Amino acid sequence: MATAGERGRLLVVGTGLIGTSVALAAQAGGYEVWLDDVDSQRLGMALAVAAGSHRGRPVDRIDLAVAAVPPATVAPVVHELIASGVAATVTHVASVQYRPQQEIEALDPGCRQYVGSHPVAGRERSGPHHAAAELFAQRPWIVCPTTHSAEAAVAAVAELASSCGGVVATMSALEHDRLFAQLSHVPQLVASALAGSLSGLDRGEVALAGTGLRDTSRLADSDAALWAEIIAANPIEVARALHAVLDPLLEVAEALAGRDPEAATGSVRDLVARGRAGRDLMAGKHGQVAVRWATVSVVVPDEPGALARLLGDAAQARVNVEDIRVDHSPGQPLGIVELDVAPAQAHSLESALLARSWAANASPPVPGQDG
Amino acid sequence: MATAGERGRLLVVGTGLIGTSVALAAQAGGYEVWLDDVDSQRLGMALAVAAGSHRGRPVDRIDLAVAAVPPATVAPVVHELIASGVAATVTHVASVQYRPQQEIEALDPGCRQYVGSHPVAGRERSGPHHAAAELFAQRPWIVCPTTHSAEAAVAAVAELASSCGGVVATMSALEHDRLFAQLSHVPQLVASALAGSLSGLDRGEVALAGTGLRDTSRLADSDAALWAEIIAANPIEVARALHAVLDPLLEVAEALAGRDPEAATGSVRDLVARGRAGRDLMAGKHGQVAVRWATVSVVVPDEPGALARLLGDAAQARVNVEDIRVDHSPGQPLGIVELDVAPAQAHSLESALLARSWAANASPPVPGQDG
Repeated sequence: MATAGERGRLLVVGTGLIGTSVALAAQAGGYEVWLDDVDSQRLGMALAVAAGSHRGRPVDRIDLAVAAVPPATVAPVVHELIASGVAATVTHVASVQYRPQQEIEALDPGCRQYVGSHPVAGRERSGPHHAAAELFAQRPWIVCPTTHSAEAAVAAVAELASSCGGVVATMSALEHDRLFAQLSHVPQLVASALAGSLSGLDRGEVALAGTGLRDTSRLADSDAALWAEIIAANPIEVARALHAVLDPLLEVAEALAGRDPEAATGSVRDLVARGRAGRDLMAGKHGQVAVRWATVSVVVPDEPGALARLLGDAAQARVNVEDIRVDHSPGQPLGIVELDVAPAQAHSLESALLARSWAANASPPVPGQDG
Repeated sequence: MATAGERGRLLVVGTGLIGTSVALAAQAGGYEVWLDDVDSQRLGMALAVAAGSHRGRPVDRIDLAVAAVPPATVAPVVHELIASGVAATVTHVASVQYRPQQEIEALDPGCRQYVGSHPVAGRERSGPHHAAAELFAQRPWIVCPTTHSAEAAVAAVAELASSCGGVVATMSALEHDRLFAQLSHVPQLVASALAGSLSGLDRGEVALAGTGLRDTSRLADSDAALWAEIIAANPIEVARALHAVLDPLLEVAEALAGRDPEAATGSVRDLVARGRAGRDLMAGKHGQVAVRWATVSVVVPDEPGALARLLGDAAQARVNVEDIRVDHSPGQPLGIVELDVAPAQAHSLESALLARSWAANASPPVPGQDG
């Protein structure tokens, strides 16, 4: 924990999940924090979780102001902060950049104090009661300077990001919106559409699904109002990125509806093969070359301490568990836990677990092609 | 472990991932197992992992034969098994049912020995070396009788499913294919298309994604040739289910490309809201009413035993961890682990972990609407 205020004085306007989390993280990182919100109840909650030491606006000029408000409100709030002269630097933390920047440029042409930013740390939650100081720890935090942004302003925003535990990446607002249309906005829409298509089924039918459906649709738990605003603020790039996903699927649907089974098979095979190539781009742990872990599957009883016992046994075998998935099944007192480990350790882990009476089975990494 | 052979005599034709896993599970469940495969190398591997005690076909008549072959090969293999008179009952374990059943009906009209089946236990792997006896444990295993199937044949297939640890559900082949187009085939295509759309990006860009993209595209690791065959064998239902996902997305794309921002916002909001309703249909653990867990987020160092220590501390606090997610971040020695627990236990777990020097933060369950 840094000394309070050593990093400077920070004003956070808007105390939803992200604003309150920024405030908590910045305080832990050494900022003296003011909190403000038009919604006094939400502000009260943020103060109650000790996210800031001051209520409302500071009397003196401060170092940095953060507009933690929905995308459509970013420009007026940033403009008001600039006009009031309260802060040396003004930023925001919305997950779209280009439209807010255009709106701010229109209100404050050539403004040097403004720098956009986006901590990549959303979750399927909202509200100050879900806030967490560690929300940004080790996560990307994109900084988007304009052509007018002062160097000192860019440095101040990058310092906030680092102080909150984030990993800074810098790009233009347009580059950001193109990239996050693909990485975030379209996956959100696709997950929602997939989950929405289940509405004609009953719970018993949906319970027959494998784990794939649950993973693929997890994002659909998100807040509809917030996502509508985010995506509507990035319409051109999202429409473009959506078509990059939909057009190949429409081709597959057409091929399936046609009378040529071979064409249908070829169409699906090409789509799935392109998907594997895309997945290969996803970094493994630590952002290095994508790693494919070996998996050890273990049957685990549904009782307190069972997972801990399993991982304790794995640790005793001196194996580092890189990832873990718990697969619960309908109506049963057992689940399957998949432990991802370095391929060289899979068999020694399997042996160690079998020796401790677990039902365990090691599988090599998913290969590039194994028929 | 049951006594070898007490359940009867089983022939598994095809020793890929599913066939070898069925053989391993059935052996553990008390069957005497024969293995056969046109690919002698694959058969050798399956015998090497002790998935069966006999090579090739049995001399005497046996109780049950399983065609564990790709969808397009199911009908000829089942027909050959029926014609040879080797088995009292013949089934298969492909993830499509209607087309193979139609093909078998054409070859063996009115056949009473045949019953279709589908263990819902695929994974993004293939080959006998990935086989696991526990692959079916606690997972749904769909049994699809025809209108001609003998009661004894249906019972024999259900007994195999139960002996392998599966949870039996019975439905017609057509009902199966309609349902699994939605639950499995379309999610596969959507995940592949999403991952495939990333092909223009580089690893560094993809590494900036949040965890949502990784979840949403996980299924894209699957085997292209196998999925092409599965989906091409269920063309009408997949095309229909695909449109149920694509049509709303096309409407959103059109609204985004239009000149009416309010219409675009409304279109996205409706889509995401329908997705939340669909997610509500997904059972929580144990297939009962969907449970929304509270989440405790914890910062965990990337070192052997750290996860075990965390779960040990959770167990000492007498909290049952219902689900766990590990979120690794690019270039960093720490990760965030999310522990899902009963809402009533979240704060006591948080306190217990804080007392043991973890950086932990409890969040209530995702609410239906919290703005």
